[in-house]
Amino acid sequence: MFDAVRFIEEKRDGRAHGPEELQVFVESFHKGDIPDYQASSWLMAAFLRGLDKAELVAFTLALAKSGKVVEFPDGLDCVDKHSTGGVGDKTSLVLVPLVAACGVPVAKLSGRGLGFTGGTVDKLESIPGFNAHLSMEGFVDQVRRIGCAISGHSGDLAPAEKRFYELRDVTGTIPSIPLIASSILSKKLAGGSRSFVFDVKTGSGAFMKDLDGARALARQLVDLSKALGRKSLAVISGMEQPLGRWVGNAAEVREAIEVLRGSGPTDTTSLCVSLGGAMVFLAGRAACRGEGEKACREALVSGKALEHFRLLLEAQGGSTACLESPEKELPLSTETTLVRSGMKGRLASFGTDRIGTALRYVGGGRQRKEDAIDPGVAVEILAKIGDEVSPGSPVLALYHRGGEAGETAARILAESFTVAQEAAVPPLIHETVE
Amino acid sequence: MFDAVRFIEEKRDGRAHGPEELQVFVESFHKGDIPDYQASSWLMAAFLRGLDKAELVAFTLALAKSGKVVEFPDGLDCVDKHSTGGVGDKTSLVLVPLVAACGVPVAKLSGRGLGFTGGTVDKLESIPGFNAHLSMEGFVDQVRRIGCAISGHSGDLAPAEKRFYELRDVTGTIPSIPLIASSILSKKLAGGSRSFVFDVKTGSGAFMKDLDGARALARQLVDLSKALGRKSLAVISGMEQPLGRWVGNAAEVREAIEVLRGSGPTDTTSLCVSLGGAMVFLAGRAACRGEGEKACREALVSGKALEHFRLLLEAQGGSTACLESPEKELPLSTETTLVRSGMKGRLASFGTDRIGTALRYVGGGRQRKEDAIDPGVAVEILAKIGDEVSPGSPVLALYHRGGEAGETAARILAESFTVAQEAAVPPLIHETVE
Repeated sequence: MFDAVRFIEEKRDGRAHGPEELQVFVESFHKGDIPDYQASSWLMAAFLRGLDKAELVAFTLALAKSGKVVEFPDGLDCVDKHSTGGVGDKTSLVLVPLVAACGVPVAKLSGRGLGFTGGTVDKLESIPGFNAHLSMEGFVDQVRRIGCAISGHSGDLAPAEKRFYELRDVTGTIPSIPLIASSILSKKLAGGSRSFVFDVKTGSGAFMKDLDGARALARQLVDLSKALGRKSLAVISGMEQPLGRWVGNAAEVREAIEVLRGSGPTDTTSLCVSLGGAMVFLAGRAACRGEGEKACREALVSGKALEHFRLLLEAQGGSTACLESPEKELPLSTETTLVRSGMKGRLASFGTDRIGTALRYVGGGRQRKEDAIDPGVAVEILAKIGDEVSPGSPVLALYHRGGEAGETAARILAESFTVAQEAAVPPLIHETVE
Repeated sequence: MFDAVRFIEEKRDGRAHGPEELQVFVESFHKGDIPDYQASSWLMAAFLRGLDKAELVAFTLALAKSGKVVEFPDGLDCVDKHSTGGVGDKTSLVLVPLVAACGVPVAKLSGRGLGFTGGTVDKLESIPGFNAHLSMEGFVDQVRRIGCAISGHSGDLAPAEKRFYELRDVTGTIPSIPLIASSILSKKLAGGSRSFVFDVKTGSGAFMKDLDGARALARQLVDLSKALGRKSLAVISGMEQPLGRWVGNAAEVREAIEVLRGSGPTDTTSLCVSLGGAMVFLAGRAACRGEGEKACREALVSGKALEHFRLLLEAQGGSTACLESPEKELPLSTETTLVRSGMKGRLASFGTDRIGTALRYVGGGRQRKEDAIDPGVAVEILAKIGDEVSPGSPVLALYHRGGEAGETAARILAESFTVAQEAAVPPLIHETVE
């Protein structure tokens, strides 16, 4: 019989748990043998006292093994990518076909969006017919056939992680770097890939608002991956403003198609090439990241990346008509409200999370798990940080369905940026952690 | 709507709560609006981050006001006493009539024993007919009539404290000095007395095993009492060995009667005079503690203290026959097992908590709240620390009902003391905190 009180006391007093104890703790909690009030007391103790490297490895493995684990056939060494979430972050939509086009198998598991950022699954579901929920067998088989697959994170994978996360969400124990890292990596391990590229965002639209926090998380993710026998690399990218030109589900798919066609916004394209290059390098298909990036650029120019997106849509039941006429097949809401600058100067900063919040207001994101998503609502970013604006210059455009929600969202957007005489353009990529 | 997550985060990040927030938190938890898993996460954060003086006052008041509060008529300023619990600690039985005999009204609220120490209520219930559960009105009225009353702690007083305590017990958050102090004082405040004497035990038979811990708790209790507008004083007394000659419910009542007759063991008598003197002094009936002690000694010699015990028994329905023939009216179990020294030397130490554990084994204490108590089982302390012993000298006598439980208890007792060439006699009273 597992002595939960003694286990809690051990962490409370700053002592380290043994790997077997941690495994039994995770198993017992997952089976329901340890009540939530004991698990939450332990979570707070772990939050404040920390978990050392050996504990973190054991905890992450126990979470990963709490359900099914995807297994790819020998020789199919897949790469996966994880973003800590940002506003307008549609890189996964581009990266999966792009990296596959470079000959690297990509097995991407995605979560639904909650909070102020949308999820990749939500975005893909704005494509008519797209099936974002593959069976484990279907997922493995598709990667083998066409070199890539994207699927919503199944409840079968790392189910204990889900229970812990839900408890952390209501007990003030989310923002702990070790707990975040173990949460992310347990799902990635269960997903079966051999190497991971992490896109750790920092800035006003990110979970980690400051660079130090992002650095610490990036370091933890890379170190923990190594301890777990996986190759990885973390890119710290800026979320001081939304990525690219569009925020919104259908609108982001449209932007992703533009990038795959080689005509997307510079920032989205650059970030995709950086992350893609890292993925190709990690998978051993390039001698260095630069060579990987070169391969990615070529795949965009040659049309191979777009071709792989077509294969992906066909394999997962999505209509490919959106590749030819995205405006028609991925329609935006028709009510448009422009949000303008009130003064002359340069766009100096975004309260990026407010843009996400405004979009959620008009139905583009969910407050609760059960909420439905409106794919057509969007925010168009008409000016980026550093751009000159005059009184009356449009900065943002809101595409919505009218009514009070639209007015509220427009008011939130009106307070989502500042204009000043001087503006420092934030870097797209801060640094890389290997 | 109270934001419990924000409240937990505040404590997690080391910030102080406002008094109103704390009150709403306690009320909401008590009403069931805050689930256990959030309360336990906060408790662990409070355990590790601490509570400052203002927070502790607000938390204690909120606990105290969560139920009924005993109110005595004007001019009836009662004194109460609290012990942190020890093996063979029968001082309350003596102190209530003793201090009342000195003209100070005593309103004693007691808990049932749980763990390795028995409760005052359990001891009193070994007296035929004794009613240890008075109504609030009956309690107040009896103090007014005869100057003293002892009652089991009613569930109506500080009920939120009970809920918190039960949760702390299973979430590793008991041994926090601020939480312990608020727990004790909330019940004392609800009990309506104006001043409190705390007997903080230290040693192998105490909750606080070391002197530093006992000191910190004593200081916290006295400081918190002051901040709450109550007079108090804490005595740190030694629990390196059982107090007096007897451990066990009926046996301890017998010893208390001996002390009240002026013929009790020296240590029990001395501690009662010290604590009683402090109570008389705090109540303003003596110019200093020494004068209060003198009054107590006189009340023992004159028979006034015993007379007040008779009044107490009569008022609460207990048979007074035990005052004349305690051996007959408070019988001990008839099976006797002597536990002997194996070597020559001096009795050097007791594992005092083991004596409590052994007694619990034979039915003298409870493992769970619903367990019944056997009043007749007892351990007699035949040698104290520093006494010379030879091979075969009896050290302890176990009074039990035979069977396997008796054998197990005797084995535990055999390992509850050490004999050595030298022995340092521990002080009965370490220090006083005012």
